Amino acid sequence: MKKILILNGPNLNLLGVREPGIYGNEGFDSYLQVLNKRFPSLEIAYFQSNVEGELINKLHEVGFSYDGIVLNAGAYTHTSVAIADAIKAIKTPVIEVHISNVFAREEFRHHSFLSPVCKGCICGFGLKSYDLALTSFLD
Amino acid sequence: MKKILILNGPNLNLLGVREPGIYGNEGFDSYLQVLNKRFPSLEIAYFQSNVEGELINKLHEVGFSYDGIVLNAGAYTHTSVAIADAIKAIKTPVIEVHISNVFAREEFRHHSFLSPVCKGCICGFGLKSYDLALTSFLD
Amino acid sequence: MKKILILNGPNLNLLGVREPGIYGNEGFDSYLQVLNKRFPSLEIAYFQSNVEGELINKLHEVGFSYDGIVLNAGAYTHTSVAIADAIKAIKTPVIEVHISNVFAREEFRHHSFLSPVCKGCICGFGLKSYDLALTSFLD
Amino acid sequence: MKKILILNGPNLNLLGVREPGIYGNEGFDSYLQVLNKRFPSLEIAYFQSNVEGELINKLHEVGFSYDGIVLNAGAYTHTSVAIADAIKAIKTPVIEVHISNVFAREEFRHHSFLSPVCKGCICGFGLKSYDLALTSFLD
Amino acid sequence: MKKILILNGPNLNLLGVREPGIYGNEGFDSYLQVLNKRFPSLEIAYFQSNVEGELINKLHEVGFSYDGIVLNAGAYTHTSVAIADAIKAIKTPVIEVHISNVFAREEFRHHSFLSPVCKGCICGFGLKSYDLALTSFLD
Amino acid sequence: MKKILILNGPNLNLLGVREPGIYGNEGFDSYLQVLNKRFPSLEIAYFQSNVEGELINKLHEVGFSYDGIVLNAGAYTHTSVAIADAIKAIKTPVIEVHISNVFAREEFRHHSFLSPVCKGCICGFGLKSYDLALTSFLD
Amino acid sequence: MKKILILNGPNLNLLGVREPGIYGNEGFDSYLQVLNKRFPSLEIAYFQSNVEGELINKLHEVGFSYDGIVLNAGAYTHTSVAIADAIKAIKTPVIEVHISNVFAREEFRHHSFLSPVCKGCICGFGLKSYDLALTSFLD
Amino acid sequence: MKKILILNGPNLNLLGVREPGIYGNEGFDSYLQVLNKRFPSLEIAYFQSNVEGELINKLHEVGFSYDGIVLNAGAYTHTSVAIADAIKAIKTPVIEVHISNVFAREEFRHHSFLSPVCKGCICGFGLKSYDLALTSFLD
Amino acid sequence: MKKILILNGPNLNLLGVREPGIYGNEGFDSYLQVLNKRFPSLEIAYFQSNVEGELINKLHEVGFSYDGIVLNAGAYTHTSVAIADAIKAIKTPVIEVHISNVFAREEFRHHSFLSPVCKGCICGFGLKSYDLALTSFLD
Amino acid sequence: MKKILILNGPNLNLLGVREPGIYGNEGFDSYLQVLNKRFPSLEIAYFQSNVEGELINKLHEVGFSYDGIVLNAGAYTHTSVAIADAIKAIKTPVIEVHISNVFAREEFRHHSFLSPVCKGCICGFGLKSYDLALTSFLD
Amino acid sequence: MKKILILNGPNLNLLGVREPGIYGNEGFDSYLQVLNKRFPSLEIAYFQSNVEGELINKLHEVGFSYDGIVLNAGAYTHTSVAIADAIKAIKTPVIEVHISNVFAREEFRHHSFLSPVCKGCICGFGLKSYDLALTSFLD
Amino acid sequence: MKKILILNGPNLNLLGVREPGIYGNEGFDSYLQVLNKRFPSLEIAYFQSNVEGELINKLHEVGFSYDGIVLNAGAYTHTSVAIADAIKAIKTPVIEVHISNVFAREEFRHHSFLSPVCKGCICGFGLKSYDLALTSFLD
Repeated sequence: MKKILILNGPNLNLLGVREPGIYGNEGFDSYLQVLNKRFPSLEIAYFQSNVEGELINKLHEVGFSYDGIVLNAGAYTHTSVAIADAIKAIKTPVIEVHISNVFAREEFRHHSFLSPVCKGCICGFGLKSYDLALTSFLD
Repeated sequence: MKKILILNGPNLNLLGVREPGIYGNEGFDSYLQVLNKRFPSLEIAYFQSNVEGELINKLHEVGFSYDGIVLNAGAYTHTSVAIADAIKAIKTPVIEVHISNVFAREEFRHHSFLSPVCKGCICGFGLKSYDLALTSFLD
Repeated sequence: MKKILILNGPNLNLLGVREPGIYGNEGFDSYLQVLNKRFPSLEIAYFQSNVEGELINKLHEVGFSYDGIVLNAGAYTHTSVAIADAIKAIKTPVIEVHISNVFAREEFRHHSFLSPVCKGCICGFGLKSYDLALTSFLD
Repeated sequence: MKKILILNGPNLNLLGVREPGIYGNEGFDSYLQVLNKRFPSLEIAYFQSNVEGELINKLHEVGFSYDGIVLNAGAYTHTSVAIADAIKAIKTPVIEVHISNVFAREEFRHHSFLSPVCKGCICGFGLKSYDLALTSFLD
Repeated sequence: MKKILILNGPNLNLLGVREPGIYGNEGFDSYLQVLNKRFPSLEIAYFQSNVEGELINKLHEVGFSYDGIVLNAGAYTHTSVAIADAIKAIKTPVIEVHISNVFAREEFRHHSFLSPVCKGCICGFGLKSYDLALTSFLD
Repeated sequence: MKKILILNGPNLNLLGVREPGIYGNEGFDSYLQVLNKRFPSLEIAYFQSNVEGELINKLHEVGFSYDGIVLNAGAYTHTSVAIADAIKAIKTPVIEVHISNVFAREEFRHHSFLSPVCKGCICGFGLKSYDLALTSFLD
Repeated sequence: MKKILILNGPNLNLLGVREPGIYGNEGFDSYLQVLNKRFPSLEIAYFQSNVEGELINKLHEVGFSYDGIVLNAGAYTHTSVAIADAIKAIKTPVIEVHISNVFAREEFRHHSFLSPVCKGCICGFGLKSYDLALTSFLD
Repeated sequence: MKKILILNGPNLNLLGVREPGIYGNEGFDSYLQVLNKRFPSLEIAYFQSNVEGELINKLHEVGFSYDGIVLNAGAYTHTSVAIADAIKAIKTPVIEVHISNVFAREEFRHHSFLSPVCKGCICGFGLKSYDLALTSFLD
Repeated sequence: MKKILILNGPNLNLLGVREPGIYGNEGFDSYLQVLNKRFPSLEIAYFQSNVEGELINKLHEVGFSYDGIVLNAGAYTHTSVAIADAIKAIKTPVIEVHISNVFAREEFRHHSFLSPVCKGCICGFGLKSYDLALTSFLD
Repeated sequence: MKKILILNGPNLNLLGVREPGIYGNEGFDSYLQVLNKRFPSLEIAYFQSNVEGELINKLHEVGFSYDGIVLNAGAYTHTSVAIADAIKAIKTPVIEVHISNVFAREEFRHHSFLSPVCKGCICGFGLKSYDLALTSFLD
Repeated sequence: MKKILILNGPNLNLLGVREPGIYGNEGFDSYLQVLNKRFPSLEIAYFQSNVEGELINKLHEVGFSYDGIVLNAGAYTHTSVAIADAIKAIKTPVIEVHISNVFAREEFRHHSFLSPVCKGCICGFGLKSYDLALTSFLD
Repeated sequence: MKKILILNGPNLNLLGVREPGIYGNEGFDSYLQVLNKRFPSLEIAYFQSNVEGELINKLHEVGFSYDGIVLNAGAYTHTSVAIADAIKAIKTPVIEVHISNVFAREEFRHHSFLSPVCKGCICGFGLKSYDLALTSFLD
């Protein structure tokens, strides 16, 4: 059974509360239950933090033993060289996901420091972006 | 049964021949058979052209009747406002896919005129990017 | 009697269908009949293509014998050096028209490769932009 | 009968004297007589000033009662956010005109602060640009 | 008793009329009465002009005798080096105010030539921005 | 009685010690007492952290119950998309303040990610900037 | 005897008062007397205005009859396309002067819209810059 | 005997007609006869199209069997990532040629998407540029 | 005896594990022992954190009592105005070090917010960069 | 008697031969005789070199004893930080001169590394620019 | 018999020694013998210098009497306005050559100050670039 | 015994004379004696020139036999691709040094063409920068 971490960055703890027009109104906890049901062959861990350095700590912690990481770094996507360096430093492949279509939003959200060092990127499918990322680890 | 078009742009007819280090060495035709088997609930049409205007023609042709379009516009991704306008003009939702991780390649491949008008974007999973895009149309 | 070509570029075949908020909901064919009536002293030919090279072919074909060309190159306005070169290469004067006010839209629509080589530019009057362009050939 | 203001900005009082290669050698006063004859159904007022603020004053003065304004703001086209704000603040639709093809001249003339807030733009037809702008108010 | 000038730039004479969604629908004259009542310890003079040079003249006139200037230079904020030079040239401290949150509007409104030479800046509080600026002169 | 949070970002714990030429030599704690006296009708809470994520945590914590937040995000003003996202995600209005006139300092301090999502901005008045921000919540 | 106009732009009426560290503390009037004495063969007229449009008016007024113009357009040097157009429109040669070395000051003072259309440029010599400009008209 | 394709892009069918000051007045057909005589050891094929995608098709067609390609992509040189990708995808070495000295013309002609993926580049020698390119295949 | 802090930023806890081609395969702990032996006259403290704000806390803590700080801020070098402000705020001189030659790597690593406020910078010598930085505190 | 060096940079040895439309057709040697006659109170030395480093050597050689330097650094004006550093390093004031109006020529000639460190700048007066520069040393 | 100068710039004296992967391992002297044999109808002179000014001196020396110059200015290609000015100043046509394909290397090698003033440009053919340049002088 | 060259570029011959606030007032000759004493195990050669090409000549001369080069290229650091190419062309490792903290000075001093091709970089330690560079060659 593959071990996968879903790692959420800043403000994603407010999912379901924050700007529902963009992010929908389902909280992540309830969605996690859905995912656990849909992917019985995956062992899914979950961590969220608003602190950039704690996301890095978590990447270090699981990055040499887990089979995959699904990362939604939120706003740090666009500003954090440090998280990008962490991704390069670890062994576990990382998939970048975004709930909204970041390319249809403000200019500063079009650039990601993380994309070049992730294995792949999925965005714009709402919470289903996580689902597709987990699917990519099947097989 | 949902009708989906896979639409491939310039140079993707050379798949399996062209730069195997980046694009792998499986041609698209044989992969299409795999997809047909994996997605029995989808009716998958396929079209490829190296001519920008013919891709637009095809988008117009299916864009008011099909249930989804999976578009890999190749190099036109980075230069074609006309294809972006076509996507905006039609009703069918379009998913942008790329075989390689375009963000890990040349600077000019980091910008897509199509992303802001597509529903979502999937890149970097090899041919599996098409698979995930089709998965997004299930349910 | 002056011979004038109205030359329409990509996606303008969808006029009346595409984004009516921006482009209105009258198709170009019915408007062409209106123009023919309003300008009995002009012989108006019409051509539309989504293929950049076919627009160039048409410019070459009429560009040494017609009295004027009214060109709405659509999205190619912003990306095509090749059409600009074709306009410079021919003898017939070309008027650039746009249905919408391109300067009130996305940044990338503010630059036109064609404007510097056209005789004049008219934009923002809806379909009436074509009417004003034809008026400029009277006298 | 529609009331239209033709509003000319800096240096246009020198028309007929200034750089005849670009602007022709007909003064605006004599051309105004031509326009009055051609458009008997329009009541055409005329104002010219070299002072940015006086152009704004005039826009305020007529901008809630006239039916249209034909504005050639000359060099202020490229530098005046204040005139653009005035156009947005009033009710009367404004048509931007230029005698020369500004896009075929210096780089700094390619950007207009006014275009995005005007109804339409006509340039490159010599003095006939005013004629076409007035035509747009007929019907 | 401190003498303060409120100096308003282009288009602010249309306050209450112009774009009420952004600027509210109270005219400045009636608001001035409110301010006079709220700040009995201040002698408040008022001047408005659409002419850049007249704003400079006014700054020169009061800038060596008044105790403070509250300046809303409107669109000249973003284009006028000359007003900035006038502010640097005088002795009276100047507070820059804006009714709207200029940073939430068009890109070209994000830069102010005046901010670096003003004592402080207050924006986004509607007409209350003037109130806060006057408050800063109390004590 | 309105509940207001004053939220201070990185290095503001050194106030009174750090670069007195720019920031003055009064510590924030003693100034807080002054504010409490001047604004008896406000209940003022205070929090400072050098950790970006802890500022976000605090915004989340009070952002659905407090009546206002006065935020001096220090250097994070210029680099933090994550704090900007937090401000957009909460309900409580946020006022951005700066002690110094940031526009008179280094180029990189002229851009704020926070200004577009705050209600208003006050800068350059020394510690009095906080006072004016609190004043804006009266009435 | 040659007729020369010295034309001074915004804030130069404050000469001797404004920032003496940069501009010296001699007013222009007393310096004009010095110039009149040093150049008995020149008939020197003088005009100053803070209004951009009035400077343009003056250029038009003398620009077809005087033998030379010495122009210090102050801050308008860096922002006024309209004055540049006026210089191009007239016949009299214009010499651009600056009291300070503009290239040793703020970045935005390094670009002049006027330099390309003036005959020559002299800057950095204090009030002596005017003297050298007048010298250039001798012979 | 080596097989070489000369591949000409948009507007080069007008050679001898179009802007003779830049491109000379000899048509390509007559020049092709000259080349055939000068290079008896080369088998020279020729293709011209104004359609970007047809140039790509031709590159694919000959790019795994011919010994060399001499490519003048005209305006597509400056805009086509798709042709560049085609050149990278094939085996046959490609020489980029230009009739005029593109670096002495408009700014947008100074950048070539093709140069980095071609073997070499020759420009500025008039039609002789083709001659030198063919020479490079001798030996 | 001088007290020196070696302060390491994000991902440097992975030294010896992370990208050995760039960073070598010696962990920092073992190297610290080497340094302690080589510099018996220095009292060397050590701290590492992946959290930007904790690095700031540490700078504040030692920055008024230690004799020197050797700082490798890792990726925060290129993004943290807050750490730069902390360095300016404290008294202890800071030396910026990098293990790799940052100027030979990605473009975004060429700019450092810290360099202008550090006393000096040493990069490219592998772990020896720390050695040279400590050497600079001798004498 | 004041000692002045006229220092000419690259290609100025070709004066009278090179591009007479821009530089005139008088060689510098004959003009030097004119200058010697016009300025009997100045002792004028002359040096020309095409080698950047030799110009620096000359500046060092005379820069602590001469009363003034008139420098036309030709093309090095736009590229040489080293000459600018030499000017800053010496005591003798340097006047920058140009024969042509550099601001009316190519974009890359609009920036001078030397202007900010010279005392003043004179350009556009043909050879007379040297004359005016020498005049500035009189008195 | 035509007289041609081959002029090599900085570091080309190391040919055969320097980076053989890019420049090959044949020294220029031995290749010069090959060229002399292949072009019996040309009198080929040769000069190399690492000093920018000496290259200019040489261009001046031969530039009014030789029939052609083949110039590989090495790194000065990308930085020397002075050499470009020398080329414009002389009569002899200059061909720019490069051994490597400069467009496939670092960004800063993509711009040449020399290309716009040379007759033509040949690059990417290894030492054969010189051969093709000499060929262009035949006939 | 290792052979090391200290190579100084333009204006460094004025050390001790030039801008003592930035460069100190010790000449390099006397400092060289200090270095010789401190590093008895190194054979230190010294060369200075203001001529870019002579620095290149020197790099070629010693670059295949010496053990190390300590290079302070002065202003050429920021402009010389040719010196960077020379460093890449030779075998001896080069250490870049600067006396001042170049990153705390003018913007154009923040970029170095040399850093990416040097082994390491040391700046901001005054003359001690040379000392640390030599230290790096010990062991």
